[in-house]
Amino acid sequence: MEVVYDIFQMIHSGYIGKVMYNKKYVVVGATGMVGREILTVLIERGVSPLNITPVASTKSAGQIIEYGWARFVVSALADVNFREFDIALFSAGKDVSARYAHTAAEAGCTVIDNSSYFREHDDIPLIVPEVNMEDIERYNGKRIIANPNCSTIQVVMVLKPLHDMFGLNELVMSTYQATSGAGYCAVSELLEQTRMVLDGETARPKHFKMQIAFNVIPQIDDFSEYGYTKEELKMMNETRKILGISNINIAATCVRVPVITGHAVSVFARFTDDIDLGKAIAVIDEFPGVRVMDDNATYTYATPIDVAGGNNVLVSRIRTHPNIKNVLNFWCVSDNLRKGAALNAVQIASRL
Amino acid sequence: MEVVYDIFQMIHSGYIGKVMYNKKYVVVGATGMVGREILTVLIERGVSPLNITPVASTKSAGQIIEYGWARFVVSALADVNFREFDIALFSAGKDVSARYAHTAAEAGCTVIDNSSYFREHDDIPLIVPEVNMEDIERYNGKRIIANPNCSTIQVVMVLKPLHDMFGLNELVMSTYQATSGAGYCAVSELLEQTRMVLDGETARPKHFKMQIAFNVIPQIDDFSEYGYTKEELKMMNETRKILGISNINIAATCVRVPVITGHAVSVFARFTDDIDLGKAIAVIDEFPGVRVMDDNATYTYATPIDVAGGNNVLVSRIRTHPNIKNVLNFWCVSDNLRKGAALNAVQIASRL
Repeated sequence: MEVVYDIFQMIHSGYIGKVMYNKKYVVVGATGMVGREILTVLIERGVSPLNITPVASTKSAGQIIEYGWARFVVSALADVNFREFDIALFSAGKDVSARYAHTAAEAGCTVIDNSSYFREHDDIPLIVPEVNMEDIERYNGKRIIANPNCSTIQVVMVLKPLHDMFGLNELVMSTYQATSGAGYCAVSELLEQTRMVLDGETARPKHFKMQIAFNVIPQIDDFSEYGYTKEELKMMNETRKILGISNINIAATCVRVPVITGHAVSVFARFTDDIDLGKAIAVIDEFPGVRVMDDNATYTYATPIDVAGGNNVLVSRIRTHPNIKNVLNFWCVSDNLRKGAALNAVQIASRL
Repeated sequence: MEVVYDIFQMIHSGYIGKVMYNKKYVVVGATGMVGREILTVLIERGVSPLNITPVASTKSAGQIIEYGWARFVVSALADVNFREFDIALFSAGKDVSARYAHTAAEAGCTVIDNSSYFREHDDIPLIVPEVNMEDIERYNGKRIIANPNCSTIQVVMVLKPLHDMFGLNELVMSTYQATSGAGYCAVSELLEQTRMVLDGETARPKHFKMQIAFNVIPQIDDFSEYGYTKEELKMMNETRKILGISNINIAATCVRVPVITGHAVSVFARFTDDIDLGKAIAVIDEFPGVRVMDDNATYTYATPIDVAGGNNVLVSRIRTHPNIKNVLNFWCVSDNLRKGAALNAVQIASRL
């Protein structure tokens, strides 16, 4: 739990004056793609590196993570004393959350868990700050808050203002999900296989079940009940929980595409009330963290490369239907590592 | 209109004994991706190269196309006398079809047109042979038959037996369409941009409006009415016409993905009657040209690389919904150049 930093650089960059929080953060799973992004977002938002402790498995302990003048040395999870921290951000998979989240909470930390482990627990709030921050009050004080699935977050950000205005009652979604959602090894597999295919070699799948280079794979996470994958059931169940509407019909198909970062979702949403397209576009664009990027005349629409590294959910192709009443189709895109994971988790932490 | 061939090779390969058709074919747009595939399919199906005349623009005239022992010299469209042919397969875009299809038909050819020009004309049949070959009789004898949009063909092949059994009434589709659907220049752009991105260079779009390498683009063909693209309206209108059901609600979102060949579609279909999943799977698998490839336990599902070069529509992820009645979700994949274009056109020709 050692941070080496350059005090002169800190003063020079004006950083010391910007330190906003005195809370102490422990980031569990700090060497993964989302964990690294959590460190980035904490630092971007003015948290002092002195107040951040990156933690990973014993295997990764000692690894060094550099952020300009800040240099973190990764600690082993087994050595962490959670009593030393105010907030524990978990992003090390379901098994680690299952094993350590309660320990951290009992030691006094508020746990924000990015795994799927707690998301559907009845006594654990599942939070997108712009949408349902008030749910934290409604749940009892287990000190554990679940961070939703990446694709779910971006969709509920758009659906919330629409639901408040028109009353959502059915949702059909198909996703276009980037490989970074599956971690470093998935991104390397995409890049390595792509080179192989370009060089005329045969690409052999390792992480993915099928070749991902120049291909699309209609399976994310394991298969589960009713022929749906767990990823699809997450989108269906988490959307209901976050929006607080248990009786809407939701069908999702989750597909991995050969993209590095940036998830996209094609959404067909049916509402109770008539849709006024102008009002729909206005309420989407006014919602915090969401921006409409939609002008067919100038071929303006969002794609994954537009959102990589950004904070907003971008919404395009917003249209009603010539025959079907009360329907809105749209396309939304967001950085799956940021608003889809790290940014949302840090936003929860900063609002506590 | 010259074909150079090796008679000894033909005898040696047993080809001469296999010649099945005496009809004479002219392939307009023979140097394009679909045109080349039409030549391949005609030859695969036993049509003698002597009976095939490839035609293209004056610019491409003289170009040589080789198929093993057969060697075609491309003729200029301006020089073609359509009276010399029985069947004219057009695949050179809407403008060429608009200008030459009627001339060919008036000269006595039966025209099978792969462009979108005639598809929605009330007096022109739009045919997928396995689905609605009988529609040719119902239309008056203009000698022009339209070949449907690539994504539409594969979807109606799966929907036809389901509609006959359960009665289709609503359809929501999102596509994952390969670059070869947009021609050679689109495929080269994907490959060239992919190399550039891997080498750390900036990819500049030419054919596509946005970078296609490691990205997905929610626009295919131009924007049209109601905020839909022409490709989306084609899927919506052509599906109704081919299945002969004018009153079904259809919403489509068409997306280009960085795949070379093989279109995939995520389909949500609502029917009038209760769905028996076992029966649904059986009627799909029994339909000619369609195969079910669907076993979650062994991670068996179809992806674009599975269908490239093949003739079948493969169907996977077939599932009902835990809450929504009478709904079937599925994923279908097919080679967009073959069943999506060339094969379907040649199948129409061979059934005439």
